Amino acid sequence: MLEIVVDAYGGDYSPKETVEGALSALDSYSDFSLVIVGNKEEISLLTEGRRDLVKVVDAPEVITNNDVPTEAIRNKRNSSLVAAIDYMNANENAKALVSTGSTGAVLTGAVLLTRRIRGVIRPALAPVLPTVKPNKNVILIDCGAIVDPKPQNLVQYAQMGAAYSKFFKVDNPVVALLSNGMEDKKGNALNKEAFELLKNSNVNFVGNIEAREILSGDYDVIVADGFSGNIALKACEGTAVTMFELIKKGIMAGGLRAKLGYLLLKPVFKEIKHKMDYNDNGGAVLLGLEKIVVKGHGASKAKAVRNAVLQARELAVGNLVEKIAGEIAHD
Amino acid sequence: MLEIVVDAYGGDYSPKETVEGALSALDSYSDFSLVIVGNKEEISLLTEGRRDLVKVVDAPEVITNNDVPTEAIRNKRNSSLVAAIDYMNANENAKALVSTGSTGAVLTGAVLLTRRIRGVIRPALAPVLPTVKPNKNVILIDCGAIVDPKPQNLVQYAQMGAAYSKFFKVDNPVVALLSNGMEDKKGNALNKEAFELLKNSNVNFVGNIEAREILSGDYDVIVADGFSGNIALKACEGTAVTMFELIKKGIMAGGLRAKLGYLLLKPVFKEIKHKMDYNDNGGAVLLGLEKIVVKGHGASKAKAVRNAVLQARELAVGNLVEKIAGEIAHD
Repeated sequence: MLEIVVDAYGGDYSPKETVEGALSALDSYSDFSLVIVGNKEEISLLTEGRRDLVKVVDAPEVITNNDVPTEAIRNKRNSSLVAAIDYMNANENAKALVSTGSTGAVLTGAVLLTRRIRGVIRPALAPVLPTVKPNKNVILIDCGAIVDPKPQNLVQYAQMGAAYSKFFKVDNPVVALLSNGMEDKKGNALNKEAFELLKNSNVNFVGNIEAREILSGDYDVIVADGFSGNIALKACEGTAVTMFELIKKGIMAGGLRAKLGYLLLKPVFKEIKHKMDYNDNGGAVLLGLEKIVVKGHGASKAKAVRNAVLQARELAVGNLVEKIAGEIAHD
Repeated sequence: MLEIVVDAYGGDYSPKETVEGALSALDSYSDFSLVIVGNKEEISLLTEGRRDLVKVVDAPEVITNNDVPTEAIRNKRNSSLVAAIDYMNANENAKALVSTGSTGAVLTGAVLLTRRIRGVIRPALAPVLPTVKPNKNVILIDCGAIVDPKPQNLVQYAQMGAAYSKFFKVDNPVVALLSNGMEDKKGNALNKEAFELLKNSNVNFVGNIEAREILSGDYDVIVADGFSGNIALKACEGTAVTMFELIKKGIMAGGLRAKLGYLLLKPVFKEIKHKMDYNDNGGAVLLGLEKIVVKGHGASKAKAVRNAVLQARELAVGNLVEKIAGEIAHD
């Protein structure tokens, strides 16, 4: 049976919300079981009465955001994260990992310890963002796995992203390259080279786009180097937060009239907040490894962890790894 | 008397709104005059009855967004943009240019034709963004003048940004480097080198920040290479637009209740829209040249052009060029 490995520590609400969320995912499907990794005593208390589809692996150490990722992965072999990755790599049925720990540590650990798909130069981190169109998402790849990639890597990001987008019922994914303008000749040296390679690749490449277009819903996969991809992702996130703060401040300062207006518009705000908070809807997936690694937000509560586990299950059941291998082999 | 040169063409609402906006700026101060460049016949009609502080320079050609910037600057010597730059460079009192034309053409033209401040390696484009704090802006530099800068350029961006921030009554500007994480060791190769140089420079450098923090109001100057700076700027802009669209859609779909809520919150939305629309409040300034170049948004209407002209005047009267020269010489 498929096993989803859950790193129970490292998140802001670990282990309680992490374990609770993972357990609740078991209610939705009966085709997988959980392997929860961390302090056995604590986890056993949290999983009491739910022992059937739950295995606990003891790993008393914790990697925090204060650890230097490379050092932590090397030295904290008994941490929940490293033990979870080790378990996954050693067990064929353990096809996926969910962690809400330090992004740097999860990326470093997975990249160093887990085998890459044959042909993949380097893996890439791919969050799924909402767009202005209903029920339409966009994959932004890479958002920080490799800050100084080669142009060839970006072609593979496009291929991996295209394979991933099949899970969103996209038939012929539209792939664009994030640049500083729409024209073909725009971009820095890396982008200009990547542009030429993408044009001659097997993906449905439509050219350069500006960052204004990320959330337009006109694209399925947006390719970027990990440095500027991370900046684009965080700028979108930060602006959404800023807008909500400005609205809140405006309402606070706007007297009774504004407060009444807020009450009436509350459902609208709630829906937008939910839509824009892509962390709520699962995690960013690290693509290119022989296992599926879902990085949930550090601030994930039970519901977000549950969604990340269900996302990991879906990608494992739907053979994401094999789909990526197929795209890469094409080239 | 100080002359502000206005490129009357190239914007979406040129020449009518461009000329109208420029003329209205004359009502606020009597210490400058306008030089309006473009089709003399058309401009003469638009400036009728306002000949006192207005000089018209004839230049019948127009550079559009469809022109390749370098070719247009070379071949369309009789375009409003090139003629405006030429006029500025040839006349000592013409200390500033305002254009709402193609960003690429304005940058290319100014960089190729206008002398740099002594010591400046390359100029940089510096828009001023709103923040979540009231009456607090942030300068994002460079947003696209140079897509592949050297680490040394970024130090000069910090210095030029610090000089510019004096116009926002900032005493000891807080400078940060845009990166993919807050930690000192984060960043791509360029950023890591720039980090070390900034640490040892004469600016008040506080380290790396993520793009989430751009609008936080905690920083006065955020330094970036032109490629990722442009991505950050456009991602912020695009997300703000997306949020407004989502709110609009939610209100449309939310029935009478939502529409009533909207009416009550209209003043709040209007204020936020105005705040977030930084294009309304002036233009992005190209820093590092011996003249002041203000690039207004292509979609600028009269009010935005007026603000861009007033901004150019303020920077000229306040000796921005000399202030930058002072910061750079420090190094």
